[in-house]
Amino acid sequence: MSASEQPSPASSLEERLTCGIDGSEIYALAAEIFPICRSITGPGVRETLAHLGRHIPISTVEVPSGTPAFDWTIPREWTIREAYIADESGRRVLDFRNNSLHVLNYSVPVNERLPLNQLKAHIHTLPAQPSLIPYRTSYYQEQWGFCMAHHQLEALPDGIYTAVIDATLADGHLTYGEFFQPGDEQDEVLFSAHICHPGLANDNCSGLSLLTYLAARISQQKTRYGYRFLFAPGTIGSLAWLSRNENGAAKRVRHGLVLSCVGDGGGPTYKKSRRSDAFIDRAMAHVLSHTGGDGVIVDFSPYGYDERQFCSPGFNLPVGLFQRSRFGAFPEYHTSADNLDFIAPEHLATSYRIIAAAINIIETDRVMLNLLPKGEPQLGRRGLYASLGGDPEAPKKNMAMLWVLNLADGTHSLLDIAERAKLPFATIDAVARTLEQHGLLRPATSATEPLDGPESH
Amino acid sequence: MSASEQPSPASSLEERLTCGIDGSEIYALAAEIFPICRSITGPGVRETLAHLGRHIPISTVEVPSGTPAFDWTIPREWTIREAYIADESGRRVLDFRNNSLHVLNYSVPVNERLPLNQLKAHIHTLPAQPSLIPYRTSYYQEQWGFCMAHHQLEALPDGIYTAVIDATLADGHLTYGEFFQPGDEQDEVLFSAHICHPGLANDNCSGLSLLTYLAARISQQKTRYGYRFLFAPGTIGSLAWLSRNENGAAKRVRHGLVLSCVGDGGGPTYKKSRRSDAFIDRAMAHVLSHTGGDGVIVDFSPYGYDERQFCSPGFNLPVGLFQRSRFGAFPEYHTSADNLDFIAPEHLATSYRIIAAAINIIETDRVMLNLLPKGEPQLGRRGLYASLGGDPEAPKKNMAMLWVLNLADGTHSLLDIAERAKLPFATIDAVARTLEQHGLLRPATSATEPLDGPESH
Amino acid sequence: MSASEQPSPASSLEERLTCGIDGSEIYALAAEIFPICRSITGPGVRETLAHLGRHIPISTVEVPSGTPAFDWTIPREWTIREAYIADESGRRVLDFRNNSLHVLNYSVPVNERLPLNQLKAHIHTLPAQPSLIPYRTSYYQEQWGFCMAHHQLEALPDGIYTAVIDATLADGHLTYGEFFQPGDEQDEVLFSAHICHPGLANDNCSGLSLLTYLAARISQQKTRYGYRFLFAPGTIGSLAWLSRNENGAAKRVRHGLVLSCVGDGGGPTYKKSRRSDAFIDRAMAHVLSHTGGDGVIVDFSPYGYDERQFCSPGFNLPVGLFQRSRFGAFPEYHTSADNLDFIAPEHLATSYRIIAAAINIIETDRVMLNLLPKGEPQLGRRGLYASLGGDPEAPKKNMAMLWVLNLADGTHSLLDIAERAKLPFATIDAVARTLEQHGLLRPATSATEPLDGPESH
Repeated sequence: MSASEQPSPASSLEERLTCGIDGSEIYALAAEIFPICRSITGPGVRETLAHLGRHIPISTVEVPSGTPAFDWTIPREWTIREAYIADESGRRVLDFRNNSLHVLNYSVPVNERLPLNQLKAHIHTLPAQPSLIPYRTSYYQEQWGFCMAHHQLEALPDGIYTAVIDATLADGHLTYGEFFQPGDEQDEVLFSAHICHPGLANDNCSGLSLLTYLAARISQQKTRYGYRFLFAPGTIGSLAWLSRNENGAAKRVRHGLVLSCVGDGGGPTYKKSRRSDAFIDRAMAHVLSHTGGDGVIVDFSPYGYDERQFCSPGFNLPVGLFQRSRFGAFPEYHTSADNLDFIAPEHLATSYRIIAAAINIIETDRVMLNLLPKGEPQLGRRGLYASLGGDPEAPKKNMAMLWVLNLADGTHSLLDIAERAKLPFATIDAVARTLEQHGLLRPATSATEPLDGPESH
Repeated sequence: MSASEQPSPASSLEERLTCGIDGSEIYALAAEIFPICRSITGPGVRETLAHLGRHIPISTVEVPSGTPAFDWTIPREWTIREAYIADESGRRVLDFRNNSLHVLNYSVPVNERLPLNQLKAHIHTLPAQPSLIPYRTSYYQEQWGFCMAHHQLEALPDGIYTAVIDATLADGHLTYGEFFQPGDEQDEVLFSAHICHPGLANDNCSGLSLLTYLAARISQQKTRYGYRFLFAPGTIGSLAWLSRNENGAAKRVRHGLVLSCVGDGGGPTYKKSRRSDAFIDRAMAHVLSHTGGDGVIVDFSPYGYDERQFCSPGFNLPVGLFQRSRFGAFPEYHTSADNLDFIAPEHLATSYRIIAAAINIIETDRVMLNLLPKGEPQLGRRGLYASLGGDPEAPKKNMAMLWVLNLADGTHSLLDIAERAKLPFATIDAVARTLEQHGLLRPATSATEPLDGPESH
Repeated sequence: MSASEQPSPASSLEERLTCGIDGSEIYALAAEIFPICRSITGPGVRETLAHLGRHIPISTVEVPSGTPAFDWTIPREWTIREAYIADESGRRVLDFRNNSLHVLNYSVPVNERLPLNQLKAHIHTLPAQPSLIPYRTSYYQEQWGFCMAHHQLEALPDGIYTAVIDATLADGHLTYGEFFQPGDEQDEVLFSAHICHPGLANDNCSGLSLLTYLAARISQQKTRYGYRFLFAPGTIGSLAWLSRNENGAAKRVRHGLVLSCVGDGGGPTYKKSRRSDAFIDRAMAHVLSHTGGDGVIVDFSPYGYDERQFCSPGFNLPVGLFQRSRFGAFPEYHTSADNLDFIAPEHLATSYRIIAAAINIIETDRVMLNLLPKGEPQLGRRGLYASLGGDPEAPKKNMAMLWVLNLADGTHSLLDIAERAKLPFATIDAVARTLEQHGLLRPATSATEPLDGPESH
């Protein structure tokens, strides 16, 4: 936001949420947490939450290993200290310190000398992308392993190697972070990002950082809904949260978004909730239709991120997934190429603005009544046309005024009007406030209050 | 219509409305009223109504200046006598007598000598269409001005010019014309064309003339509905009519069309009513789907002609807009190129036939019952196939018979059947009359009378 | 089906219906009945039914000439013994023995000497397809005639010819065949193929033969519905059946298909029932969406085969039409090119499998309930992911499991799930059985039993 665009005291929530955000701050925090080796349990998650916690007061929840979570059980805690492969001269041909992807995530410990051909059974590569290190995990099957570039593996001479993974798998805790900002109403908006991936910048340092800045900004606003931000390990973390909150916060979720991969230049992509016609589905579809780029709306499917759990049939929460490029659809996905070069401040800022625009709709959509519904009011007499002189947005605002006056009959909300007018909600909202100031509109006392006109006879 | 196509005594309403109309008569009347300088008030409107009144008995309504019309007030009456710009030698470089567009419509009077550079502030041109005179108005802001070709303005030498507009703006009346033909029922069909534009042939001499001929022809028919034709100045004229008829005729409007720009070769275009699924919307969409050319159906929007007022939320009347090229979408729009060369008898005739086809649907749509609903009746035995021998329309009529018999189950009207069969309503209507004559169909006693068949158990 | 694909004891109905069918047996039976000269009445129909009756116990129904069938009357029985045209030397230039199409079907007898130019009035050819013999009938207008290749007609020298049709049109019977296999419920599935066309392989020896093999296989299965197979002359035959069964079997039809032209390589084509949203319409659309080729779904129209009668408004049965190429849309249609070279075992087998897949949906669609609806069940722990190792269908089956678990909430049947997942019903059905075996699903006690979850509050 340039100096000339400072929000006025009467600025919209959307303006207050986005003012001054240019993406560089989101990028910096994502870069800060990028090197940390996270997994579904262990100190990496706690360390990451500590970084986020410098911006917002995060509650850290520790769930003991062995705790049931519906059909699942909280697994042991994984602590990784060191991992390398050394040749016979002791030279480390692979070292976990260089890249957190080098170790098979959640690997059991090993300290073994073995010939290359046996070692290869434990090494994961990407032959089709031979210069990239893959990201691999083995949460629910005990094994050890390394990940490396295929080129590097092919260059290794035969011989005996020493494979060392100094890790512990032991009873401990699963850790997740939560931040909640109360609203005027009991109902809540849920935002969630997974915190279990190691050094992948887009998937999901980008989402963790964006939500942290959003939470910080939300905490400065008075809002209708409560806002809950969840930073939890994928699948088991959201299951743990759901199992602990199924009769509490989970019942209060009225709108929700899972965020992942929000820092690249693709998409934007919105995957609808299982309900497919939830308000968040309409709001996100509307925002994307007025965002540049190749925005795409994808139908719900039961494969993806934690929306799988939130949208399981026993919960069926109105929670969608927001991404830039769709997961699995970009070549950097789950490789060492998903690094800090792959994300950019401008893309993070665009993603942030999309979410802010959706929040603005969620918070401010309302039904207004035209107080002069017979014929058009004479806008020119009130200076409502003239006041727009020189404004390059004037034609759009004029059309927006005509649409609001035409449809403010007690049966259309401002989002309904924005959708039918094919104009941004923010424009419709702004002219509705102007028309209300001029006494041409008032809020409907209920969402179904009809006009008193011939059609009601 | 050629001699061989004389409608028979059993001709359809559509045939009776269109028989003998070839567009030349509509063109001639449009040409007759083209030179008159109309505005939202004043003698130009009365003079135009006098021309139309030679064909139908028009009631002229005079509404005094100052009369309220909802949020508006009837303005002063404008009388223009003379307008010109003369150079120092007295030569008129622009003269209103040559083109009624030369004066800013509703201009205040002026008689002033001033240098060219000051005069230019009062001259409107179209730099992008430098040989055309624009059409400009200033109804609700007092100013004086001229309109001219940009080329002509550029050719004017510097110097002192005399600007004369001999006009009066004074309390008087707003004038509109109305013609009403009663029908069997109280419900009415409303046709409306604006009468406030000066010398623009398509917008809207074409509409005024077409409606006059339609009204003349309607007045010779016995109809189900009453037919009301309104010739009123744009916006303020329809508001005046609505305010005077809101508890009367406005409540009886069951179908309606605003007509403008019906003489060029574009489109045809139908803009739906605010209701979007009114019967007139279906009827016009159906007719356009069977008319050649690039027919297009446009969603309602609150910008356009007087449908804006009829479709304001306090009225929400089932009134759409019919045009050939869409307003604003042709380069001649609101310029001196919208002249008698731009419209043509053949296009006026096509527009007329489209309206007549829609009236036929409005008047004659009905629910018929198949009297032999089990299996197909044996059409060949009745000569219903044979009777079509040599008729190039035979395959279409055969399909139409099968469709009518198949869907005449008490839940489908003839328009429903025509839509599903993708056949013209006129064809469906014709075979329905034939099948009724052969005892295979009868009118349903109510629109929901079901067949007595297995599906009713 | 190869040896490695033998259905297991737990095989699906679809597997049991299709196991071992490769199309050669259907082709052989079609070839067997191809030479027989059928018409709407007469010994050709009886002879054809005798061939089919070697595979299934067909009931032959004889309806006397003069019997009313709704608006129609059963016509006289036609017996054709011999037909030829001979030149003055006695050489037969056309002989019915060579091709049953050579005689105008249902022709009155003739034995006459006449010059070529008079004979030509009785000869039907296809000038645009000069080497093909057309198929022509004259059921309801008494006339005699021959059909021949246009080339052949042009080559005939002038002269006197003898035209002989040794045929009888006399009171007798209309014959149709019926096979019924009872099911657990009273409701029935109706299959119908017309038996009135002479030597046309695709239209409809293919349909008669396919249904015979299907009936034979169905008769070995225990089914939910009764299955009725009708082999009747077109139009008058289905009308006769409907008039005799209107208060019986016709009321019990819950799903139905007319089959014709099922042996060529086009389509496949499904024309929807008049209801357009009947279960058979959904089932066939689903199967075709997962069949290779250019499958196409066509809206109902009242022109075609016997679905015209079944879908007449007095019955409105849920009966669609299945074809490969659409009738009238292939150049071989109703010509001598619709011969045994035009159909092929592989195409017959594909058509058969499509019908079997639809029957499987009709019989086994059901509503299942997820017993662990909160979050996803841990499939890996149960070996449900691992068990798929090496299976090329594994990704599809994994997605199918997730979809079934996600939508098995008491409001979606397996077909609903297959449609939304865009996966074949057979895959959804298979994983539903697997999940049920693992205790993760159970059948809903009613189609509307809801899950007990937050959304029910």
